[in-house]
Amino acid sequence: MKKYNVAIVGATGAVGQELLKVLAERNFPLGELRLLASPRSAGKKMNYQGKEYTIGLTDEKAFDGMDIALFAGGSASTKYAQSAVDAGAVVIDNSSAFRLRDDVPLVVPEVNPEDVDWHQGIIANPNCSTIIMAVALKPLHSAGTIRRVVVSTYQAVSGAGKEGIEELTEQIGQTIRGEKVAPSVFAHPIAFNLIPHIDVFQDGDYTKEEWKMIKETQKIMHEPALPITATTVRVPVYRSHSESINIELEKKITAKEARQILSEAPGIIVCDNIENKEYPMPLYTSDKDEVFVGRIREDLSIEKGLNIWVVADQIRKGAATNAIQIAETLIERQKI
Amino acid sequence: MKKYNVAIVGATGAVGQELLKVLAERNFPLGELRLLASPRSAGKKMNYQGKEYTIGLTDEKAFDGMDIALFAGGSASTKYAQSAVDAGAVVIDNSSAFRLRDDVPLVVPEVNPEDVDWHQGIIANPNCSTIIMAVALKPLHSAGTIRRVVVSTYQAVSGAGKEGIEELTEQIGQTIRGEKVAPSVFAHPIAFNLIPHIDVFQDGDYTKEEWKMIKETQKIMHEPALPITATTVRVPVYRSHSESINIELEKKITAKEARQILSEAPGIIVCDNIENKEYPMPLYTSDKDEVFVGRIREDLSIEKGLNIWVVADQIRKGAATNAIQIAETLIERQKI
Repeated sequence: MKKYNVAIVGATGAVGQELLKVLAERNFPLGELRLLASPRSAGKKMNYQGKEYTIGLTDEKAFDGMDIALFAGGSASTKYAQSAVDAGAVVIDNSSAFRLRDDVPLVVPEVNPEDVDWHQGIIANPNCSTIIMAVALKPLHSAGTIRRVVVSTYQAVSGAGKEGIEELTEQIGQTIRGEKVAPSVFAHPIAFNLIPHIDVFQDGDYTKEEWKMIKETQKIMHEPALPITATTVRVPVYRSHSESINIELEKKITAKEARQILSEAPGIIVCDNIENKEYPMPLYTSDKDEVFVGRIREDLSIEKGLNIWVVADQIRKGAATNAIQIAETLIERQKI
Repeated sequence: MKKYNVAIVGATGAVGQELLKVLAERNFPLGELRLLASPRSAGKKMNYQGKEYTIGLTDEKAFDGMDIALFAGGSASTKYAQSAVDAGAVVIDNSSAFRLRDDVPLVVPEVNPEDVDWHQGIIANPNCSTIIMAVALKPLHSAGTIRRVVVSTYQAVSGAGKEGIEELTEQIGQTIRGEKVAPSVFAHPIAFNLIPHIDVFQDGDYTKEEWKMIKETQKIMHEPALPITATTVRVPVYRSHSESINIELEKKITAKEARQILSEAPGIIVCDNIENKEYPMPLYTSDKDEVFVGRIREDLSIEKGLNIWVVADQIRKGAATNAIQIAETLIERQKI
């Protein structure tokens, strides 16, 4: 079996670390592994799968001999993705820099694996909330043609990386001790609070996070005009994003049919047994690769509608797992 | 000025205590005040406005001479509301027992004050999430006729009373100390988690809380067929419920117009200055009587739609304040 040389850019961050975990778990056919980071981390040692690695510096010459370059996100993507392509690697990029470019496929392997075929060196990994929603929408769209989506999110602090996790813990302590809470990662205190503001404000007073959920979902689903509206909210949960999704369909799908369709769909676990108080919750979906769907109900306010409650680990399926799955899809479809 | 004798049933609980606070703050024309509770609390002393009160036992004979009986909620309502009416008092009841009965008005004074006029002894105080939503919907309905509402809630633990607050605090400590979290008030751990399940499951796999938001809103707004769908979720926030509300209208209302309409409406504070990162958040709406509305945006997925983000203290406007306002409305409209 052919092995592939893989560079990980941003190997020391939250997503970089998760990429390494997922690579090992999935028995990826790994040849050489090259760990890269910014000058702050370059030169440090890291143990991985019983072997010591020295973190290399991300620069123009860092990608020689690599087949795949996994960019964990951030500004390195715009600076060095082209260098990786020029060196002959396929870039799988977790930043938002290339996602909406016409010459860059935006891929969720359960939804549009065929889009890897037309890559020109870069494949974009979608926004975390978007991936989670797209996995759940796709099978319902295939069965009943979605006409409109209204989504409200409940997003964990780890969406803002390790610093987000630390800030919640710190503020919980400050609140309990009666001290002043001083936000730095988030715009306001997040302990015992909700912040209806993720990323910067843009057109129509929507946040960039809300626009990502709209525009990226349209691109992934090949439905550039699909009506979607989104409200994204940060909640004091450590990990896993949750989404309350209302769906209008062209064809009636009963709750029972939806449960069946979703339970047969790739990447989804239906968790919807209300008699036993079973529904997806972020405390129990962390470190898992699947998208959990529950509270599946017919929306009685319209003729052909559904409500679903969707939860998934946004660092796994929302980032690292999806990126590795894109690499696997490239290999399966012989596009590398 | 005429004064009114008021009995508070459940005076020692969270809503009962808030009723006492609000009565004092609003300078309610109070004559005799009678504090009543279950056998567990009856006989205890309580200080209020510099005077000592002995908690009386709620029973059939407890309401003699009372003009108004404020029931804080729970099983006392079904047991003793009729006794209070028979004794000549008007009952304002915070339980769900009478809310959907055809002979009982369900009132939010900013929305349907005129409904107090046809009371037959009992007026019901709506569900907390419902009151908050109805205050925000009413002015938009008057301006543009609402055709459909999709709401997802983010509900504080104090919705489950003092025990809910204590359970969150206890579980936060248990989680930080690495101990096992043992839920008792809520079906699952609420610390660092979300529970998409409030009250019992009913028809169509909707919870009772979701049905309340649908049926009670329809009754309050005199729109028995208004299409509404709801998903209600418990979040690890101490106080104030938040709601992400999507509204379809018959007549186009721009975001700017909506801001104007809402800022002129009674009981609402518009908090929607995204340049300064100002939007309603539960940490800052507690102990306030108003409903805070922000993130006001046109819903670009339909021709005539709006998204709003609504937050209010569910123990104040969602319960105690609304009940006292009903009493004030009764007096103003001379229906007592």
